Formats: sequence, structure tokens, C-alpha cells
Amino acid sequence: MKVSVCRKAQFNSAHRLHNSKWSDSENLRIFGKCNSPNFHGHNYSLEVWVTGEIDPETGFVMDLKILKELIETEIENRFDHKNLNLDTVEFKSMNPTAENICIVIWNLLRAKLKHNLTLKVRLFETERNSVEYSGE
Amino acid sequence: MKVSVCRKAQFNSAHRLHNSKWSDSENLRIFGKCNSPNFHGHNYSLEVWVTGEIDPETGFVMDLKILKELIETEIENRFDHKNLNLDTVEFKSMNPTAENICIVIWNLLRAKLKHNLTLKVRLFETERNSVEYSGE
Amino acid sequence: MKVSVCRKAQFNSAHRLHNSKWSDSENLRIFGKCNSPNFHGHNYSLEVWVTGEIDPETGFVMDLKILKELIETEIENRFDHKNLNLDTVEFKSMNPTAENICIVIWNLLRAKLKHNLTLKVRLFETERNSVEYSGE
Amino acid sequence: MKVSVCRKAQFNSAHRLHNSKWSDSENLRIFGKCNSPNFHGHNYSLEVWVTGEIDPETGFVMDLKILKELIETEIENRFDHKNLNLDTVEFKSMNPTAENICIVIWNLLRAKLKHNLTLKVRLFETERNSVEYSGE
Amino acid sequence: MKVSVCRKAQFNSAHRLHNSKWSDSENLRIFGKCNSPNFHGHNYSLEVWVTGEIDPETGFVMDLKILKELIETEIENRFDHKNLNLDTVEFKSMNPTAENICIVIWNLLRAKLKHNLTLKVRLFETERNSVEYSGE
Amino acid sequence: MKVSVCRKAQFNSAHRLHNSKWSDSENLRIFGKCNSPNFHGHNYSLEVWVTGEIDPETGFVMDLKILKELIETEIENRFDHKNLNLDTVEFKSMNPTAENICIVIWNLLRAKLKHNLTLKVRLFETERNSVEYSGE
Repeated sequence: MKVSVCRKAQFNSAHRLHNSKWSDSENLRIFGKCNSPNFHGHNYSLEVWVTGEIDPETGFVMDLKILKELIETEIENRFDHKNLNLDTVEFKSMNPTAENICIVIWNLLRAKLKHNLTLKVRLFETERNSVEYSGE
Repeated sequence: MKVSVCRKAQFNSAHRLHNSKWSDSENLRIFGKCNSPNFHGHNYSLEVWVTGEIDPETGFVMDLKILKELIETEIENRFDHKNLNLDTVEFKSMNPTAENICIVIWNLLRAKLKHNLTLKVRLFETERNSVEYSGE
Repeated sequence: MKVSVCRKAQFNSAHRLHNSKWSDSENLRIFGKCNSPNFHGHNYSLEVWVTGEIDPETGFVMDLKILKELIETEIENRFDHKNLNLDTVEFKSMNPTAENICIVIWNLLRAKLKHNLTLKVRLFETERNSVEYSGE
Repeated sequence: MKVSVCRKAQFNSAHRLHNSKWSDSENLRIFGKCNSPNFHGHNYSLEVWVTGEIDPETGFVMDLKILKELIETEIENRFDHKNLNLDTVEFKSMNPTAENICIVIWNLLRAKLKHNLTLKVRLFETERNSVEYSGE
Repeated sequence: MKVSVCRKAQFNSAHRLHNSKWSDSENLRIFGKCNSPNFHGHNYSLEVWVTGEIDPETGFVMDLKILKELIETEIENRFDHKNLNLDTVEFKSMNPTAENICIVIWNLLRAKLKHNLTLKVRLFETERNSVEYSGE
Repeated sequence: MKVSVCRKAQFNSAHRLHNSKWSDSENLRIFGKCNSPNFHGHNYSLEVWVTGEIDPETGFVMDLKILKELIETEIENRFDHKNLNLDTVEFKSMNPTAENICIVIWNLLRAKLKHNLTLKVRLFETERNSVEYSGE
């Protein structure tokens, strides 16, 4: 009997889309205003989904207080109020598109979850744009 | 050609997380403030997803008015403005975690739906915490 | 490594549920107020999900600006500020239920997407009623 | 000690913006796609604010169940699943802009409220467009 | 140059509407299901508005981190995961209607704010029902 | 008969709170993580309220298409996908707190509106933090 639990969180970061192997005009052509040189930013909104069996003692798949703290430790402390391009090791050489941020978050959380739990991450860059990754 | 239809609903209940086999201090350690003895409460928000073939006569998978009434009869009348621990038979001996409430709701609705329809239930306990169950 | 990207959009249309093979009283019995003869309307809210591999050069599954423009060209220009029953070829002879609108939108977008991408469409008719189709 | 209470509601209607004293081209120039001849529609979302003293016996400014029923009787029954231009007496000769709909709703509710209560109505035509009227 | 700043917060409580001077049947007649004897509950959502001059050194009317902590100390610690009727001194003898809760919150926060700041509190009991008080 | 109309918009910017007259440690003490040297960012969400008489010919206080374009020209083109501290003249020497951004937006829009219309601006920096200014 598999149940999924979901915890929402938020972090506010600056970023810029840029491929260092391309010319400036090619970067502008592909990334448009997201290539703006001095960065822009977002309120990134995060949904972390964990799926597993219910523990009959607690009635929990996973204590959401623990999941909340895991997201704070692994994700918010790392990315909140940071410049993703300049302040983080993860995006020093990787373009911080929503897709890539989502995969990085998935990998960071996956490393801290028990093996019998499965993980899905949804990341909203804006109200209208979001991405989702489940490790498949 | 399978389509899913979703109806949202809401019910407002009191509850308390508690395992009667544990000591008070163990209950407090695991459930924290959710173990508060005189109960707290939530606006539970519910998404009921029903999947099936479209009826070519109506263009409906299932008339959402009927699904709305089913949710009222089976779920809202049972749980709305109730104390889940004290007023319901379902949670007399089962801990009313979001996970367990979601499974109970799934079972109550599953019993009333045609066999060729599949069912998924998502339950929000707060804006940031939710669970999902699809009977698997 | 499959990632899904989602773009939200909105269009405002009039419609009426009606089966021309039925009597007026049968239409009223099944469709209720949705059969109201002079039409009513909705702010249809749309989520378009596209799944595929990330392009290592861009970090995109699909440029969301292109998906946004595709939704404008194929969906909004066709349905926004229109009467679905009277102004569109798609619903001249098909009942514009949320289910049927969702399938029509999926087919319109599917024809314009690369074959290695998969597509899912969710359509909200109201805040509480929505449908989803993924071509299966 | 004045407190305001607010109740939200929703109705789904078709409408068209049109000034019968103008030419077709003038209507199109001013109202754009909102002048589309066969109507379009909206999920109108309504906030009704009532301000007054708290009754010390009930702790209510006004019982929100009664306000809910008043909105159903006076507003939803009149406008929900209707064509505002064709099906209502209020907009037979008045252009159903959000501004005018809001004033009509205010007048309908004002007539049913006690004189010691003040009234404000906010009407959302879309998620991004809304209007507000308080009788001043 | 007066600017208003607003901070949102949330607390989850059980409550019951009841007037001890009335008979059970009178309580049921007036308060309906909100009088349910074993309590129900809500996710109370709070907006705290503070208005004042901008400090030219900080660019703040009031540091929202300080307002957030004030709401935690004065409101959340007092009411979150509590039974308003049984666990709080404020509602031992006062009916915990949304109106009364809103005034109590206003008074608690007012006592901690500088005199040159004005205060308004909006409290949502459900998504559709809210109240507002500004001390007038 | 005064009616208010409201248009919502959004822009995504990087910023940093900093007072150049203070030491680094004083900036950190007051602005905390908002002082992070390489900037962070937000999805700024904007509500522009315009109040005036209804034009009896159009039924509009102000055509919301024109207000939408005014917000695009004056606000979005200036601030969207920009670094407020580095890329704008407005915040070269003014700290880009939500309060100051809100006043700057109000002044930019006020200069373009007819004198018989009044203006109020609400700016959300995050889902939980917002500010409002009406020129008083």
C-alpha cells in the first residue's frame, strides 16, 4: 500500500542562463532576456514528493517535519538568497535552467532518503513555468 | 482513450495524532505539537481523480455533479465539522494522519464507483503538506 | 534522464453542453444548467506538460518561450474570446465538455511537437473541476 | 468596534461588450476581442464585504451562512450559467463590463442588507483583472 | 509618505462556537454545525498589515523579519495546534468566532507595535470566509 | 460613483539590500541574508489599482488593456529580468526594498495617468511579504 507525501518549500535566488561555449549573440538568441548579464531572479517554489509504505506505528510514510528539515538543510541553506551562478558549486559549470536545478535538487535529496522511498521533485520558476523530475 | 476528471472539495475537522500503545512522552517525541491533548484542526482540501473512457453520448468520463454529490454524501457528511478521533468510527482506533485519512477516503469512494473507473485521492492537510493515494 | 516541463495558459470562452440527438428535456436532465440555451462561459486554465531528455547545450527539454508561443498560436488564437459551439470547427458537431476540449487541445499540440517528446494536458473549467489527458 | 466580514462566491457566465449606439468598427476598436459577436465567458469570482458592529450574543457581524445564502439567491441564481446580455434584465440595455456588473451586484445586495451594515463588492473577471465598488 | 507592509502567517486550531447562556437547541439553531460538541478545526490564515513612514536609513516601514517573529511569539505560539476554547485564556469566556479571534489578535499585536504605526489584521477561517479589523 | 479597477502583473528581478553608508557588518546585522553580496531575486507580483468614475459610453473606469500596456511599458520593460541595483537608474542610489520599489512604481505610473484617476500599488516580494502605497 504505497502512499505519496508532499512538502512545499520556497527559496529566492538570482541566476542567469548562459552557455560559456557560445558567443554572446548566440546566448542572447537562445536565452533571450534570461541571459541578461547582471542576473535576474525568482521565488523558486518546490514540491518534494516521497512515496513509500505507511509505518503502522506512526501512520506516516515519512514524518513531514523531518522532510521539512531535510529540505531546509540540503536545499534552502544552499540556494536561498544566493546567486546560483556565482555562489554555488553545483552551477559553477552547469547552466541553472529550471530543468538542471530540479535534477540537482533531486540528487541532493535522493542521497539523504532511505532506499525504500521513491522521490519526485517539482520546481516552479514562475507561476506559469515549472518542471518535474523523478529520476527516470 | 482514457481521460481523468478531478473534483475539489473541502472539510474542516479537529484531530490529534496519538498512538495509544505508546507512553505520553513517546507520543510527544514522535508527533510533537500534533499530539496536543485537546486537539487542533485543519481545513482539509481534497482532490478526487477518476479515470476512464469518455461516454460518447455525454462527452463525460463521469458527470462531475454526481462526483460532487458522492463526495458530499460519503466524505463531507462524515468528516466535516467533526472531531476525527471522537466523532467517527473510522478513526476510533486508527491514527488520523493525513496518510490514513487519505486511504480511508479512497476506500469510501472506491466502494461507490463503477469498476471500470480508476481512482486517485490527494488530500491537503495544510497549504504545504499533502498526501496522495491511488490504491496501489 | 527524462524531465517534464509545464507551461500554464488561459483562455476565456462561451460554451453550452448539448447533444443534438436528444430531446430538450433529456438534455436538461443530463446537462442541467450547463445546457442553458444562450450559453455560459469559463476562464479555462490550461497546463501543458512536455516530457523529454534535456538538451545538454541549452539545459532545456524544450524552450518554454517556444511552448508559450505554440499555445498562443494553436490554442489561444483558436478558442480565446470565442463561442466554442458557434465559432470553432472543432466543436461544431462535438459536445464541448471539458473532457472533449482537453482531447482536442492535446491533438492540436501533439501535431506540432517533436516525436521524441511526450505530452500531457490538464484543463481547469473552474477552480474545482478539471480534466487531464495524456494520449493513452 | 467595526469589523468587516468577507464571503467569496463564483458564477460562470457568457457576455459580450457592445455599445449599440456605435458602429461595428467602433465597437471593435474600443472593445477588441471582448466584442466578439457570439459571446465569450468567464468564471466571475466575487468577494462580498460587510462591515458593522459585532453582536455580543453571537460574536458575529453577520452570520456568513446567511450572507452565503443571500449571494446564492440574489446573485448566483440570477447570473450563474447565464448569458448576461441575453438572459438578464439588468444587462439588456447596460454594457456588462466588470465595472457595471460590480455596481449591479452591489445594488442587489445593498437592498437586502440591514441599514447599519456597510457593503463593498470586489469582482474578478479573470485572475488578473478585477474591480471594486463600495457605493461611494 | 505612508506605506503599508503585510506579512502572512498560518496557525491550525480546533474550536467550537457556543454561547453558554443559551440552550443547546438555541446554540444549534444559531451556530449550526459550528456548534458540534467535540470541536472541529481550521487552518487559520493571517494577514498582518502595518502602516507607517519609511525609515530613510533602512528603506523599511518595519523589518518584516521582526514582524514575522512578533507574529510567531504573540500569535502562533499562543494558538497554533491548540484548542481555542479549552487551551487559551483569551477564549475561555469569549466565543471564538472569526470576528472575535481577529480582534484578539489585533489587540495582542497592537500592544507590541510602536505608537506611530497603525495596524490592520485580516483573518481567513476558510478559503471563502474571512474577517478584517483595524481598531476603528 | 467611484469604481476601482485592478490589473495584476509580474516581473522577475535580482536585487540586494545594502546601505553604502554602513559597514559590512552593520549591513549584515540589519538586512541579514537579503544583504548577500552577489544578489538574490524574486518574482515580484504587482497589483495596480486605479479609481475613478465610469465612462457611460464604454462602461470602463479605464480600459484594462491600456493599463496592461502601461504596466508593460513603464514597469516590466524597466525592471523585468534586470538587476535592480546594477541595471536601473532608479535604484542606483536607493535601496531596493519592497517599500521603495513600490513607491518608484507608483510614481512612474502616476505620471502617466489622467489627473481625475487615483492610484494605489500593491507589490508582493514573496507569497508572504507585500507592501502597498497610495501616494498619501
